[in-house]
Amino acid sequence: MEKRYLFTPGPTPVPPEVLAAMAEPMVHHRGSDFRAVYERALERLRDVFRTKADVLLFAASGTGAMDSAAANLCTPGQRVAVVTAGAFGDRWVALCEQYGLDVQKLAYEWGEAPSPDEVGAAVRESGAGVVFCTHSETSTGVVADVQGLKQAVGDATLVVDAISSLGAVPLETDAWGIDVVLSGSQKALMCPPGLAMASVADPLWERLPQSRSFYFDWRRARKAQEMFDAAFTPAVSLIRGLEVALGLIAEAGLDAAFERHVRLGRAARAGLKAMGLELFSPDDDSSAVVTVANVPDGIDGGELLRHLRDRHGVTLAPGQGHLKGKIFRIGHIGWFDVFDIAAALAAVELSLTELGADVERGVAVPRAFEAYDEHVAV
Amino acid sequence: MEKRYLFTPGPTPVPPEVLAAMAEPMVHHRGSDFRAVYERALERLRDVFRTKADVLLFAASGTGAMDSAAANLCTPGQRVAVVTAGAFGDRWVALCEQYGLDVQKLAYEWGEAPSPDEVGAAVRESGAGVVFCTHSETSTGVVADVQGLKQAVGDATLVVDAISSLGAVPLETDAWGIDVVLSGSQKALMCPPGLAMASVADPLWERLPQSRSFYFDWRRARKAQEMFDAAFTPAVSLIRGLEVALGLIAEAGLDAAFERHVRLGRAARAGLKAMGLELFSPDDDSSAVVTVANVPDGIDGGELLRHLRDRHGVTLAPGQGHLKGKIFRIGHIGWFDVFDIAAALAAVELSLTELGADVERGVAVPRAFEAYDEHVAV
Repeated sequence: MEKRYLFTPGPTPVPPEVLAAMAEPMVHHRGSDFRAVYERALERLRDVFRTKADVLLFAASGTGAMDSAAANLCTPGQRVAVVTAGAFGDRWVALCEQYGLDVQKLAYEWGEAPSPDEVGAAVRESGAGVVFCTHSETSTGVVADVQGLKQAVGDATLVVDAISSLGAVPLETDAWGIDVVLSGSQKALMCPPGLAMASVADPLWERLPQSRSFYFDWRRARKAQEMFDAAFTPAVSLIRGLEVALGLIAEAGLDAAFERHVRLGRAARAGLKAMGLELFSPDDDSSAVVTVANVPDGIDGGELLRHLRDRHGVTLAPGQGHLKGKIFRIGHIGWFDVFDIAAALAAVELSLTELGADVERGVAVPRAFEAYDEHVAV
Repeated sequence: MEKRYLFTPGPTPVPPEVLAAMAEPMVHHRGSDFRAVYERALERLRDVFRTKADVLLFAASGTGAMDSAAANLCTPGQRVAVVTAGAFGDRWVALCEQYGLDVQKLAYEWGEAPSPDEVGAAVRESGAGVVFCTHSETSTGVVADVQGLKQAVGDATLVVDAISSLGAVPLETDAWGIDVVLSGSQKALMCPPGLAMASVADPLWERLPQSRSFYFDWRRARKAQEMFDAAFTPAVSLIRGLEVALGLIAEAGLDAAFERHVRLGRAARAGLKAMGLELFSPDDDSSAVVTVANVPDGIDGGELLRHLRDRHGVTLAPGQGHLKGKIFRIGHIGWFDVFDIAAALAAVELSLTELGADVERGVAVPRAFEAYDEHVAV
């Protein structure tokens, strides 16, 4: 009977309209009713990706989209660069190494933002033809300047993992000339996990090598999608949910979503600071996806999260890698409003107090509302 | 407002309990409540696969499981054999060729059943170490004798695509010594598409080469599943649905499901023959997954299916490949009872009459009930 609250940066809360669409009786994926849904979903994905290019859709987690990029863009032994400043950047490294690529690792401390100038210089020096990076590094709350990165790497193909950022913070695929943008359904797109997406800029198609993956073969996927079909049985229920979710986003407008995420980030930061916590994620408007705080001295991060969850039904996200136990993360992506921030802050404040930490009571939530109140131009 | 009827061999109808589970509010995939669901789903999958070995679960279509087998079992240039007698056997050929394997193609006419003796002799001659085959060839309605195939190929690793057969017809993974069995959620497992599974026999683990796929890396998946975790964000909603569906199957018992499918096949065949149609799929109890009939002379198969769908809301499956327009297929897998067969037969009879074919009226449905009525020991 206990009520549960999900404040993690993926999976994220799913609107009831989307859940209801997923519960509709099954239809055949080649029937005219599903085709119409599929066509609308593909069209709306283009809008959210801010591209006129094809957005390929796969039944897979977001990592499947990352896999598809390495498998379709690279040949064994090819020199590539990976920009990493966290767990998801490190996933790029592992993936590229497993594909036998010659990986130039451009590593930053977890929590740092990659410098476009440094990355540009390193890529020019190595001659890497493909550069993999992470837009929103969910493990640290840092959003990278991918527009700057594209300018810096010039003609190299830039592949952006936008899994937790797409639909939350601006990413102008065509206007910024980003070659490949990858995303997943379970973040700002407000759907359950299970759909992966890849936008592929038009000029790339002519020079793609043969795909090293059968399942994630971009050419096969594109050919099928041209007929509003899928190469292999698509995840019908999830796509119906996606179509509804993208409709909700379109209704309010993508710019409104960007603004809301900035304001949610402001509210989260203001509240955490007001109760006396230190931020791990950047204290500026770039940090609009997930807000990360250091766990106060004397408190174990694992215990805090278990307490939040087991005592109060509130799920936040832990630190990953070497940050495990040292930080906690509040996701505010997708179907998220300021009262969710209020609930998350209130739960953190209560739990820390219960665990004996010295936090300021009663100020976080009002400060969060104040910070949320100022409109911003994105 | 028109009511829709789905009689295709995948996606198949999904029980309301499963749809309802998919519509529950999102939870985090690492929380204790989801872990319990995941653990039960993995345990129940073992029961349905009739194995004590690990059954790996991926967010993907069934083809993802096929991809994973070639990527995890084979190295470039390796000699493998592929048994094909239809569209899904041909998919194995395309997949193995794309992975750069040295493919010995053992091709049968579409509609034929592969001969274990012939396959065994050919594999002994070529020395292929891995043999790929299809249990239920959904394009033709033929169910292959995979027990015989395993006996015939001996020490070679047998990989069985059981996507449309698992849970519908007997497949004794451990008792028959089948090395790798692959399946998907959207057939007899009564779920929407989007989950792929692979059972991997214990002795294989020691001799696996490095996976050529990052996303479908069996070792990474197994390691995560040992902790009831997933290597990458799992398809939470679909897994909740799967857990409920597997519970429904367990409640009635797998043997009861096998018997029901045999009887559904009998009913479908009896009805089609009674109205004067010729069967394309085998006229025996092996054919329990999908029943295939030739389109009568003078009728276009595409027109028949469009008529069924657009005029009556009834979806059947068309012929694939060179059989397009010449056959139609009635799936009776998963959440399917004899009254669905009755509805499908009645719709075919009515539509053929409306299109001017000379079919016997009023006899198909009673004959189907008679054929269904005899219990069978599976």
